[in-house]
Amino acid sequence: MNRRIVVAVAAALAVNAGLAAAADAAKHPTMGEVLAASKPSDWHALDPANTLYLQLASGRVIIELAPQFAPQTVANIKALVREKYFDGLAILRVQDNYVAQWGDPSADNAAKRRSLGTAKAKVPAEFTIPLGKDFTFTPLPDRDGWAPQTGFVGDFPAAVDLQAHQAWLTHCYGTIGVGRDVAADSGNGAELYATIASSARWLDRNITVAGRVVQGMELLSSLPRGHGDLGFYTKSEHPVPIKSVRLEADVPEKDRAHLEVLRTDTPTFAALVESRRNRHDEWYKQPAGYIDVCSVPLPVREAK
Amino acid sequence: MNRRIVVAVAAALAVNAGLAAAADAAKHPTMGEVLAASKPSDWHALDPANTLYLQLASGRVIIELAPQFAPQTVANIKALVREKYFDGLAILRVQDNYVAQWGDPSADNAAKRRSLGTAKAKVPAEFTIPLGKDFTFTPLPDRDGWAPQTGFVGDFPAAVDLQAHQAWLTHCYGTIGVGRDVAADSGNGAELYATIASSARWLDRNITVAGRVVQGMELLSSLPRGHGDLGFYTKSEHPVPIKSVRLEADVPEKDRAHLEVLRTDTPTFAALVESRRNRHDEWYKQPAGYIDVCSVPLPVREAK
Repeated sequence: MNRRIVVAVAAALAVNAGLAAAADAAKHPTMGEVLAASKPSDWHALDPANTLYLQLASGRVIIELAPQFAPQTVANIKALVREKYFDGLAILRVQDNYVAQWGDPSADNAAKRRSLGTAKAKVPAEFTIPLGKDFTFTPLPDRDGWAPQTGFVGDFPAAVDLQAHQAWLTHCYGTIGVGRDVAADSGNGAELYATIASSARWLDRNITVAGRVVQGMELLSSLPRGHGDLGFYTKSEHPVPIKSVRLEADVPEKDRAHLEVLRTDTPTFAALVESRRNRHDEWYKQPAGYIDVCSVPLPVREAK
Repeated sequence: MNRRIVVAVAAALAVNAGLAAAADAAKHPTMGEVLAASKPSDWHALDPANTLYLQLASGRVIIELAPQFAPQTVANIKALVREKYFDGLAILRVQDNYVAQWGDPSADNAAKRRSLGTAKAKVPAEFTIPLGKDFTFTPLPDRDGWAPQTGFVGDFPAAVDLQAHQAWLTHCYGTIGVGRDVAADSGNGAELYATIASSARWLDRNITVAGRVVQGMELLSSLPRGHGDLGFYTKSEHPVPIKSVRLEADVPEKDRAHLEVLRTDTPTFAALVESRRNRHDEWYKQPAGYIDVCSVPLPVREAK
């Protein structure tokens, strides 16, 4: 079975090596032009069963969960959300050029901490997944330093190691990860972070990635930085209250965002990648001829 | 001459290929341990003649200028600063995961804009420098995608292209660049930006880099994002006033920060790089075995 999977991925690599060439012929459209020419079928709606609304006083952060990569963790987060575990908790840590992290301010105090309800206290580490039969991957044309091959799986930036038969989600801007202690399996989803750095790739394969922010990142990235160790807010600073976290499926239709994201397995996305690998609008004098997985925009729009 | 330069750089590459091996033998010290073991000679004080204090209501941002890479632009910025050009101007643009940019809100209004005084309105583009005799470069051991070779020149992350005999500063977190219009030579230093993204490497060789922020980045990175095109603040939003910009040399001794930065051409820095390429503290389960030039911390401390 492994052999067939490897071949499938290798074939995808070969097919998509054409990414670089694709847009070159088409007179170097800009990303805006690529998106303007996109077809409705290039986009897909977020799945309400795997979309979270993190409500702050400043607005709503929308998160797409990644059950393919972290099935048990995502199930646990959804259990916590459905029991309103996060409502009234807070953003506890904002470390400059790194992460914004939220959870229970009393997590370390057995007497005061909030009950996990029906959610599990212990969830296995889900740092990588094996390359399975249904694994589809759109590789980038350029070499990556942090991983043997990077690209996209569904709506997520990802990496694969064909020799190790593994794939994982990469830590880019807006990655949602699962805070943990030293033990690999010590994260259960009750404490989450978003990377506010455009890359934190050294975390890859060291922590469970549960999703990514698709809208509202600026509400997290512009928060005041904490001045305690690791950017935790000190007592005199201001943990930022979380009003609520809801699953989109539990939100009335009229209050939903109805977001669509660009499919990464489309020629439109390939053209978008090329438009950013080599920027040819008149401002750029020296196109880079390269892009890394965290520098590729993942367009989001409101459904028409 | 070019031939000799290339040899010199190539020799540096060979010598420093030992970066990876250096710390490995020494039982994997963490970055904290590396810094704790550093000698006074591993550090050097910032040059007051090339250090700027950007004063906001929220605090002071300290910028190290890079005259080696942008001599004419840096001279022009210093002329502007000495004439107090920036005092009372504002941060005009904060684009999420990209840049915070400041200058004259009336720059486009000939009747209202502030005079440049003795500073030049036009300065040549200084996107790259030729590899000269005095060029010294500490290369990183890992391959980069955006450039043939990356590493450090003095206190700055940089890249070299031996074939093109060029070097340039790379766009990492806190890079100070010179806003410009479409023409390559349309930036004169009166409008500057700091990258608030941890990498914006596609800007490399497309714009003049004039320095980097060495302290206070969080004052820029946590600013509210603008909601106009490109993150410019709209009329109903809040340009952030600049109280003053001063050259450290013009600031009374008692008000100076007295910062020191770790020299990048030292064994201590090589050990620091290795401590981050492969993190061996017990939290990390899978050391990356890689680092890119924008992920290497450049330590700063107050002089003892």
